[in-house]
Amino acid sequence: MSTRLLYNIRQLVNTRMRSHPLRGAELAELPVIDDAWLQLEDDRIAAFGAMQALPPDLRLLLGTDTALDVSGCLVLPAWVDSHTHLVFSGSREAEFVDKIKGLSYAEINAKGGGILNSARRLAETSEDSLFAEAWQRLQELTRLGTGAIEIKSGYGLTVESELKMLRVIKKLRERSRVPIRATFLGAHTYPAAFRENHEGYIEKIIGDMLPAIAAGGLADYIDVFCEEGFFSPAETERIVRAGQRIGLSAKLHANQLHCSGGVEVGVRLGALSVDHLESMNDAAITTLAASDTIGTLLPTAAFFLRMPFQPARKLIDAGCRIALASDYNPGSSPSGNMNLVIAMACTGMRMLPEEAINAATLNGAYALSMGDQLGSITPGKMANLIITRPVPSLAYLPYAFGTNLVGRVLIRGEFIN
Amino acid sequence: MSTRLLYNIRQLVNTRMRSHPLRGAELAELPVIDDAWLQLEDDRIAAFGAMQALPPDLRLLLGTDTALDVSGCLVLPAWVDSHTHLVFSGSREAEFVDKIKGLSYAEINAKGGGILNSARRLAETSEDSLFAEAWQRLQELTRLGTGAIEIKSGYGLTVESELKMLRVIKKLRERSRVPIRATFLGAHTYPAAFRENHEGYIEKIIGDMLPAIAAGGLADYIDVFCEEGFFSPAETERIVRAGQRIGLSAKLHANQLHCSGGVEVGVRLGALSVDHLESMNDAAITTLAASDTIGTLLPTAAFFLRMPFQPARKLIDAGCRIALASDYNPGSSPSGNMNLVIAMACTGMRMLPEEAINAATLNGAYALSMGDQLGSITPGKMANLIITRPVPSLAYLPYAFGTNLVGRVLIRGEFIN
Repeated sequence: MSTRLLYNIRQLVNTRMRSHPLRGAELAELPVIDDAWLQLEDDRIAAFGAMQALPPDLRLLLGTDTALDVSGCLVLPAWVDSHTHLVFSGSREAEFVDKIKGLSYAEINAKGGGILNSARRLAETSEDSLFAEAWQRLQELTRLGTGAIEIKSGYGLTVESELKMLRVIKKLRERSRVPIRATFLGAHTYPAAFRENHEGYIEKIIGDMLPAIAAGGLADYIDVFCEEGFFSPAETERIVRAGQRIGLSAKLHANQLHCSGGVEVGVRLGALSVDHLESMNDAAITTLAASDTIGTLLPTAAFFLRMPFQPARKLIDAGCRIALASDYNPGSSPSGNMNLVIAMACTGMRMLPEEAINAATLNGAYALSMGDQLGSITPGKMANLIITRPVPSLAYLPYAFGTNLVGRVLIRGEFIN
Repeated sequence: MSTRLLYNIRQLVNTRMRSHPLRGAELAELPVIDDAWLQLEDDRIAAFGAMQALPPDLRLLLGTDTALDVSGCLVLPAWVDSHTHLVFSGSREAEFVDKIKGLSYAEINAKGGGILNSARRLAETSEDSLFAEAWQRLQELTRLGTGAIEIKSGYGLTVESELKMLRVIKKLRERSRVPIRATFLGAHTYPAAFRENHEGYIEKIIGDMLPAIAAGGLADYIDVFCEEGFFSPAETERIVRAGQRIGLSAKLHANQLHCSGGVEVGVRLGALSVDHLESMNDAAITTLAASDTIGTLLPTAAFFLRMPFQPARKLIDAGCRIALASDYNPGSSPSGNMNLVIAMACTGMRMLPEEAINAATLNGAYALSMGDQLGSITPGKMANLIITRPVPSLAYLPYAFGTNLVGRVLIRGEFIN
């Protein structure tokens, strides 16, 4: 058994002997220990406490290679990014410029842009190239403190390409130390061939894609873009129920552009999370608050699309469970920098630093059914940790929004930088 | 004479044989050379061109230590950050949290927050400590690609403390390779002792501070916070004229919170720049467009204060000269990351990438009267350069808003990282 000791920690953040998903006002409760130590055993968190009560056997380690003095630094659980589209082929900055010039969503689609642009490129890209691109992104995110990640399919939109994406995610999972969860999002939009035949595409999802996914063990979750002009609540329900029959839990794209009924159908189907939530009315908030479904907010996507930020305060005050994620994708959030997600959550959505950190760690972990393994400094959980650069306080992290304050990162007890 | 050659440059950006401040539609004209070389002599730009026309004498350098292959990378002039408050004592994240909790500006001031908070701390901090803090910030900004910077006083508000700040700026200028300009901003707010005696403080600025600044050669520019509740246009004019008599040009805080007449008084006084401009009406825009005064926009400040972004499109379309700067300060823009400034200008203010880059380089240089020395790839100008990480295009820089794409930076021809 390999022991590691971090000591003289300015503040050890999110220390909990047990954890549960945080609801409403609980989200602001972020337990910390000032001037702390943290003991790891192999890939796990073993114990922690205040320096003044450092046990004698650990005191013997001070000054050895086993112990690391991190004076001035905070130690916190690594970010859990529970909503991304990390696997894609090529960036879409030309569309970004078209949008600045005032082209509408429809005009961009007509030029071959949007999701279908990514789908076309993905179809033309080999599985190996796709893996190489995604691997590089994953390495960069890990250096920025992301210690667990969800990745969706949805730029395939054919049986062949959806399976290709999911195989890439599987390979990432096999080769990376970072815990990864795969979500099948065949219902991201209608491919061109099915523009006038929605029923035909839904049958393909249910009849062709899902069986192949089940056979290959290629997904943990099922997602649907429940939105006006995309998939209706009824269509969403059909697809989700088919996914549930092969063991996939639901994580839905809901209420991004309209109060589309996505939250309501998600809650009714027992979805693990409903994500986006830019467009929320009182009924949707009440429904979400009364459920165990987590509402996952994506502030960098709102920023990048020039949309109003998600109504985080209303959701928290109503008693919802809230998580934060990056939505990393080439169209609407070409960034997986969770530090900036936290900063935009505080600045744009008026979340307290404590709320934002809980939402991006512990509740993020529960939004991936990994709350028992990740998201807090808890004995037995995985040692996926951020050691910050020296900072004056916890609130300094979102406050200094333009500065990368992540110093070093551990994944399963090993430094990755 | 020391020669350096950068070659296989994917795109050499902002290449101009001569330069002038860009107005209106010109701002979108960003000359680039694809697959280029760039020759430096000592601290200066000597020559550039396309690889296919690399002169034989430079071709001899390929493969030697004198030549650097930067395949896949862009080379652009380093950012010129023409509006900062880099010298301050300590961060103000507690106020950031108070604002999230909904405290008003007045309540924060009553708790000892705001500019007076920084002024109190600055008075208590030694000149050496102040220098050390600012030096560290300057190093960090340089690594992020800032190759010239303006720094204001204004957290002193007493003769002693204002001079202390300006001496710190002078010392930064003497010790750093980065070109630095100093702005006297005694008229940042009224100190507590003069809350009821504005006339007394203005007399102190004009009668005590300015003569000491003239004697010490401590400033290049004079700035006034022209705003309702701070300094009126008439008071601004008195202070600026007194500054001009000792050789200081005007750079004003104008039209941040209200259409306060700041733009009009700035233009009338021949100000080099009027900065902020969140609150602009048609009259102010017309006045600015008809002048040579540069309008300096500070998008990260608007973001951090949750204010609407500056109306960049209206200003550009009206024919104004526009620059971009960070406003780095502990209260309203605790970031000097110019890459994020560019990204927020494009995303928040709908500036084209070409416009944002021109505004943050060439027009920024003119906003510091350094347009003949900095801000473009022009023979004879200072070799202050950014070499990006490999990127697919110029637009990728603001598009990938959460990623630091600055690879290496040269200041006066020398790599600083």
